[in-house]
Amino acid sequence: MRMALGISYLGSAYDGWQSQPSGRTVQDHLEAALAQFAAQPVSTVCAGRTDSGVHGLMQVVHFDTPLARENFSWVRGTNRFLPSDIAVEWAQPVPEAFHSRASATGRRYAYVVLESPVRPSVDAGRVGWVFRPLDGEAMRTAAQHLLGEHDFSSFRASECQARSPVKTLRRIEVSRRGRYWRFDFEADAFLHHMIRNLMGCLLQVGQGLKPPGWMAQVLSARSRDAAAPTFSPDGLYFLGPVYEDRWGLPSRTPAYDWLP
Amino acid sequence: MRMALGISYLGSAYDGWQSQPSGRTVQDHLEAALAQFAAQPVSTVCAGRTDSGVHGLMQVVHFDTPLARENFSWVRGTNRFLPSDIAVEWAQPVPEAFHSRASATGRRYAYVVLESPVRPSVDAGRVGWVFRPLDGEAMRTAAQHLLGEHDFSSFRASECQARSPVKTLRRIEVSRRGRYWRFDFEADAFLHHMIRNLMGCLLQVGQGLKPPGWMAQVLSARSRDAAAPTFSPDGLYFLGPVYEDRWGLPSRTPAYDWLP
Repeated sequence: MRMALGISYLGSAYDGWQSQPSGRTVQDHLEAALAQFAAQPVSTVCAGRTDSGVHGLMQVVHFDTPLARENFSWVRGTNRFLPSDIAVEWAQPVPEAFHSRASATGRRYAYVVLESPVRPSVDAGRVGWVFRPLDGEAMRTAAQHLLGEHDFSSFRASECQARSPVKTLRRIEVSRRGRYWRFDFEADAFLHHMIRNLMGCLLQVGQGLKPPGWMAQVLSARSRDAAAPTFSPDGLYFLGPVYEDRWGLPSRTPAYDWLP
Repeated sequence: MRMALGISYLGSAYDGWQSQPSGRTVQDHLEAALAQFAAQPVSTVCAGRTDSGVHGLMQVVHFDTPLARENFSWVRGTNRFLPSDIAVEWAQPVPEAFHSRASATGRRYAYVVLESPVRPSVDAGRVGWVFRPLDGEAMRTAAQHLLGEHDFSSFRASECQARSPVKTLRRIEVSRRGRYWRFDFEADAFLHHMIRNLMGCLLQVGQGLKPPGWMAQVLSARSRDAAAPTFSPDGLYFLGPVYEDRWGLPSRTPAYDWLP
């Protein structure tokens, strides 16, 4: 039977999603917990790998198992063996044709930035930080240049393994609540470090260090050298993949609630 | 010169506020950072000690120093030597007559509880957790019995050093946002573990395990044995002391913003 799970985690303590020899990744912890619950090895495939320090509100994985259990038994049973900052939010059987990565038609991320003269404390590791006031209109104007299908090479990490640098950015929204700025991104897929590189540039514009039109120049340069430095992973949240309704999977996890 | 500082911190990693031989308390870190900035020992007095695992959004301390510096130099200079989950939010000179504890006419706390079949992950250590649905009206009715001046011995830890168990509870408010419940408390002062003991009882009522009128019985018993077990420190936030306007201190810190 093929099962899908929704996973939430605070990434601060982990070496990213993907399994590593260190064993200190979210996937390593998840598979160890699943193996303990299932009393046999379990290999998972995820919808979107996250970097070290990046958080997940609804990562989705699938795996195949001979074990038949109630959905909520998978949730409760696996959570018992997971660290306190990783949880299975839901579990559901899916058709064999479902594939957490290949079936995803899009991915959504949010980036949260604290604008304050004082650095974060209570939310250290959970928000990016700028001490200069941000100009929302300038950032929204700059973001318009990025929408649609483009070669995003300027925002691509050198280690990126994607076959093509051409991606379709469907949505960028910039909103604010008190001292917290929230940036919402949706695309068919993202290149390695793409959002953190986009954030670096958007915040240069927001702080008045570059004009909004500079974003178009960076994009058309198709060179990493044209863009700003990669911004911190601290405020980046993988909101989750987008699937067609026919799979019948939850479209969001309740772990969203707390986000500004 | 006497200085007052507003301090925010995530308490999860610390052995509470008050200095201990372990050196792993918020006060130990703050005084070490102040000593590094001031290049001389600094002793602080706080408005309200917090337990291990309890967070502070606006702890207030005062100290005396011969050093004359700009207010924001104290903030930035001290933060440089503090761990990432503790920050000085503001600094201000105060008259010699000001005393962070003795001048406080009240204290405010909030407790945040996640109501969910699944335990917290992204906000582990930052919220309490109940898996049964809570009844807000039942908890509000129970809370009414607690308002006003009472002997709160039933909610007092055995180690409590307060001179009297009689305190005046001025406000309890129960609100909800999505899956998060927030409980606001204000009193002249609180006994040791008083809020965590009150929370234990309120949540028994909220989960339907006790009727609202049971709270009056617990209160009048004036015995710790009558009350529910002490609830987790994870969701407890010291919002800060209440001072008379004449001291001219900030009445809240921006670190509030993120609270549900």
